Amino acid sequence: MILALAGGVGGAKLANGFAKILDPDQLLVVVNTGDDFEHFGFPISPDLDTVTYTLAGMNNAEAGWGLAGESWEFMNALERLGGEGWFRLGDQDLATHVMRAKFLNEGQNLSDVTARIARRFGILHPIVPMSDQRVRTVVETETGKMPFQIYFVRERCVPVTKHIHYEGANEAVPSEKFAAALDRDDLSSIIICPSNPLLSVAPILALPEVRGRLISHNAPVIAVSPIIGGETVKGPAAKIFRELDLEVSALGVARYYGDLLDGIVIDSKDAALASSISEVGPQTLATRILMQSSSDQIQLAREVMEFSKLLSRRDDRGVGET
Amino acid sequence: MILALAGGVGGAKLANGFAKILDPDQLLVVVNTGDDFEHFGFPISPDLDTVTYTLAGMNNAEAGWGLAGESWEFMNALERLGGEGWFRLGDQDLATHVMRAKFLNEGQNLSDVTARIARRFGILHPIVPMSDQRVRTVVETETGKMPFQIYFVRERCVPVTKHIHYEGANEAVPSEKFAAALDRDDLSSIIICPSNPLLSVAPILALPEVRGRLISHNAPVIAVSPIIGGETVKGPAAKIFRELDLEVSALGVARYYGDLLDGIVIDSKDAALASSISEVGPQTLATRILMQSSSDQIQLAREVMEFSKLLSRRDDRGVGET
Repeated sequence: MILALAGGVGGAKLANGFAKILDPDQLLVVVNTGDDFEHFGFPISPDLDTVTYTLAGMNNAEAGWGLAGESWEFMNALERLGGEGWFRLGDQDLATHVMRAKFLNEGQNLSDVTARIARRFGILHPIVPMSDQRVRTVVETETGKMPFQIYFVRERCVPVTKHIHYEGANEAVPSEKFAAALDRDDLSSIIICPSNPLLSVAPILALPEVRGRLISHNAPVIAVSPIIGGETVKGPAAKIFRELDLEVSALGVARYYGDLLDGIVIDSKDAALASSISEVGPQTLATRILMQSSSDQIQLAREVMEFSKLLSRRDDRGVGET
Repeated sequence: MILALAGGVGGAKLANGFAKILDPDQLLVVVNTGDDFEHFGFPISPDLDTVTYTLAGMNNAEAGWGLAGESWEFMNALERLGGEGWFRLGDQDLATHVMRAKFLNEGQNLSDVTARIARRFGILHPIVPMSDQRVRTVVETETGKMPFQIYFVRERCVPVTKHIHYEGANEAVPSEKFAAALDRDDLSSIIICPSNPLLSVAPILALPEVRGRLISHNAPVIAVSPIIGGETVKGPAAKIFRELDLEVSALGVARYYGDLLDGIVIDSKDAALASSISEVGPQTLATRILMQSSSDQIQLAREVMEFSKLLSRRDDRGVGET
């Protein structure tokens, strides 16, 4: 089984690649919930929804969030009534939030609710939140501390980042399925999907023991770089890396993850970074990592799996040599 | 000033007729909230919405509820996710409920929230809930006790009615504007709009002291019959009247309201009932009361006002004669 850690769009794309080539029992997608928030009373889980909508083949690929073919009658009416419009809730997307609210209010945990919604979207591969407890990413900026969605959507990531907190992470525990996967010694690989390291992956790693258990796990941990040629494919990773004095490159990503990684998959454009990366630690695979189509997603998923097998064999040989 | 008590569609139509011929400070529309309920966490006030949408000229006249030109993307998505579909929430209508929830959660009372929403719909005439406290109409049927909307929408009024309760009415008080209107001795008339007496008007009359204060008020109290020729124009009034052993006619309506009425407006078709009605007490005006167009609404509003003036003059003369 492959354990894939995912956040937003990039993570969802690679997770979808895996879902297309693996049986449902061969994949577990663990999703960041640090971006979750409440809006107009709705419990909103943007990354869970992005992964769910993507695996259902119903994501809006142009926007990078929400559902394809979405309509906005609710939102337009809400704004006519004076409601805040900075976070756009599509008519169909809203049904997801309303059902999530209903199920949570009935006492189900977020894992069960997510599974129930995913099944309704016809998804067979398990998608689980990183935790059933509340973790909230908070961005400390030069203009003050703000909840993630305020920073990300309302303020369009304009304020300069000084620090990022993952409130509640210390008190939270991994969700049951995530914890169970970490306990399995037959995991073939642990993939950190190309999501923003600081915003989408760090909240997962901030959960107690997760980082340590990933490092000590016998399965290779492989990250796919969300940065290509000094730019992020989507989102504010480059800007935030810069503001936090991290190098905006696949090397910067490797350094950020540090001893967590056994391997990193970078773009062919960045192949020259491989030797610097090897000094940091992980093995490097340089290939085309930009996913513009579902065949790109499948192709990258296959290559990441091949790379993982190679690393496992090296590990096995390593073990044999000691 | 005219005080109009209203419930659903018929009440909203006549209230709209008054709004078209009176200045905003000459009319107060007090609306039943016994039908209110919570659905998917939304606080829904069906009668307040019907009156608001009607006065805004945005009501769906064919359906008799909701907004004209409504779309159903949310509802369809909700049903795909397994959500209950018996109460239809249109995409635009939903915005009203979401904003109502937001304002109520901010601590505003239902009167303030209703006024705020009405203003956004461009309505200048005041619309107020009968009470800011919770009153819930509960229908006791042969198959059990059920909240009003379950009986009315989900069960389509099929179960046989045995009794109707207005839970919370004894503990509730009239809303501030309603109470203030009852205190005014310059009211020119109190109109009970053609809404279901048992479902739409009774909850208002069930509030402490309301019935007594209406009876003792110097302004004439006039009901417009919701029954024409033994049939209700819309809704289950005839069926419920029958099940509760009330005569399904304008005479039955007059008897039901009893000593509350100074006058009743009935349809020309029912003119023969006038003498029996006079034995019950109120004066009768027989005219065309079916409102199929907005000119019908205006015409009826005018006639009701003329009738009211006539009753006031008789009252004045009566006072003079004692």
